Amino acid sequence: MKNLRQVTVIGLGLLGSSVTLAVAGGSLGIKAAAYSHRASTRRKARKLGVADVVYDDIRQSVAEADMVILATPICTFEETFKTIGPGLKKGCIVTDVGSTKVLIHKWAKKNLPKGVHFVGSHPIAGSEQRGVDFGRDDLFHNAICIVTGEKNTNPKAAATVKKFWSSLGCKVSTMTPQVHDKILANVSHLPHAMAAALLNASDTQQLKWCGKGFIDTTRIASSPANIWADIFYTNSENICKGIDAAINRLNKLKKAIEMKDKKQIEKLLELARDKRAKLIQYKVSKKELM
Amino acid sequence: MKNLRQVTVIGLGLLGSSVTLAVAGGSLGIKAAAYSHRASTRRKARKLGVADVVYDDIRQSVAEADMVILATPICTFEETFKTIGPGLKKGCIVTDVGSTKVLIHKWAKKNLPKGVHFVGSHPIAGSEQRGVDFGRDDLFHNAICIVTGEKNTNPKAAATVKKFWSSLGCKVSTMTPQVHDKILANVSHLPHAMAAALLNASDTQQLKWCGKGFIDTTRIASSPANIWADIFYTNSENICKGIDAAINRLNKLKKAIEMKDKKQIEKLLELARDKRAKLIQYKVSKKELM
Repeated sequence: MKNLRQVTVIGLGLLGSSVTLAVAGGSLGIKAAAYSHRASTRRKARKLGVADVVYDDIRQSVAEADMVILATPICTFEETFKTIGPGLKKGCIVTDVGSTKVLIHKWAKKNLPKGVHFVGSHPIAGSEQRGVDFGRDDLFHNAICIVTGEKNTNPKAAATVKKFWSSLGCKVSTMTPQVHDKILANVSHLPHAMAAALLNASDTQQLKWCGKGFIDTTRIASSPANIWADIFYTNSENICKGIDAAINRLNKLKKAIEMKDKKQIEKLLELARDKRAKLIQYKVSKKELM
Repeated sequence: MKNLRQVTVIGLGLLGSSVTLAVAGGSLGIKAAAYSHRASTRRKARKLGVADVVYDDIRQSVAEADMVILATPICTFEETFKTIGPGLKKGCIVTDVGSTKVLIHKWAKKNLPKGVHFVGSHPIAGSEQRGVDFGRDDLFHNAICIVTGEKNTNPKAAATVKKFWSSLGCKVSTMTPQVHDKILANVSHLPHAMAAALLNASDTQQLKWCGKGFIDTTRIASSPANIWADIFYTNSENICKGIDAAINRLNKLKKAIEMKDKKQIEKLLELARDKRAKLIQYKVSKKELM
């Protein structure tokens, strides 16, 4: 990564500030620059020292950048590409931390100038918490990071992005944006839809009686609504297919319960239990549940 | 609780062994007796010292009991009432730790002899783990315990059962079995159905890419399938209504996603987020999230 002397992160939420925290201080030989559109966040970021430098101006923040990482809600990306594009150095790499990829690649192709290389990134880290206060320099340790590229993606830029995430402790895999969005719809976006629907179907008074099961099952629904609205909006077809599949399974279980078919109920619950046991076994073997 | 000299717990899974562990040793002045139908569990229970005495014979285990607590899967209760009923002391209290209540009260009324008092109990504690190895003497600290009674429930017996759970650290509330089953269907049984349906709708290969969100959202689906099949079976109408409500909310969210109505998507996610924030605030204020 000798070609990376400065990385600029746009957006200082949980993910953005965790990137700058991991880079700041020079241990990787990279300067960590940052920009946030909120003055209060910039002040806090400077006070907490989450980056080597925090800029007040987005164009200025990227002028010297060898890599720019977008860490704001996805639907702001197209506008950001237009804003920063003209001022980027030739050879600059642009990437992001967004949870969907197809539309982002499309927007990058349309709006970034020639000589600037876009590569998609999705570090699967974070939590339901939001904001610069929750940034952690070890957030990416053992996290999966999916790097996405298409036919026309610059191979050197992709290699640099992969090395960058590896240096932050990520386990990096590559795939196309299309495959990424299909998989993530099912393993990440659908659970979010389920958690939100469960809460929305619940009676506030009754909830006082809930135990830890309900609390855990709905944890991700406490994530920022604007960030997730953008995710659902930019991966709509895949997510709707996922919701249909989940409704199908709910109806199958409901039918067994209605018919008082205890064997079938137990079979469906056992199937789910087995699947999760295998998943946990796999995740533990990969040290992804630390 | 001077009238309680011996409590007998039938079933030494996570909940049953946690009850005996909390009572054993005499700190409450009560002898903790236990029975399990599995010889291997009885051996393990004796080795771990989870009870003051572990019986090989169920009738013998309850002969001297002032209170019997059923802690086996719900659908075994009716048979157990028939088995132990004739040998119970006059004035003996029978209760349980089952997650549904209406049918249990019905079975008790039908099968327990005159002079024996049934009161329902549902300590909302436990986890996805199973078995005597996971028993903990502090499992009930700050846990909610719902005690259920009907018009004909003996008030003294109900008072004793409430005192017993309080002495184990529970926060005790009372309601009718009907209200209990309605509430629990929504705050406990429905989340379980959602978690199972999410897993059953998921592709095993794709799951390798999941993050902690999926893991947490599905934790409760790792609970024993036979115990939960009994819960679904004995609370079928309420759970089916809950599943319908959840499907409605999923369809509402799906419609907003399909229509690319970002404002509506965000509104639905914000509604869920607000509800959970209020729930967490309430639970923290009640010290129920320790």
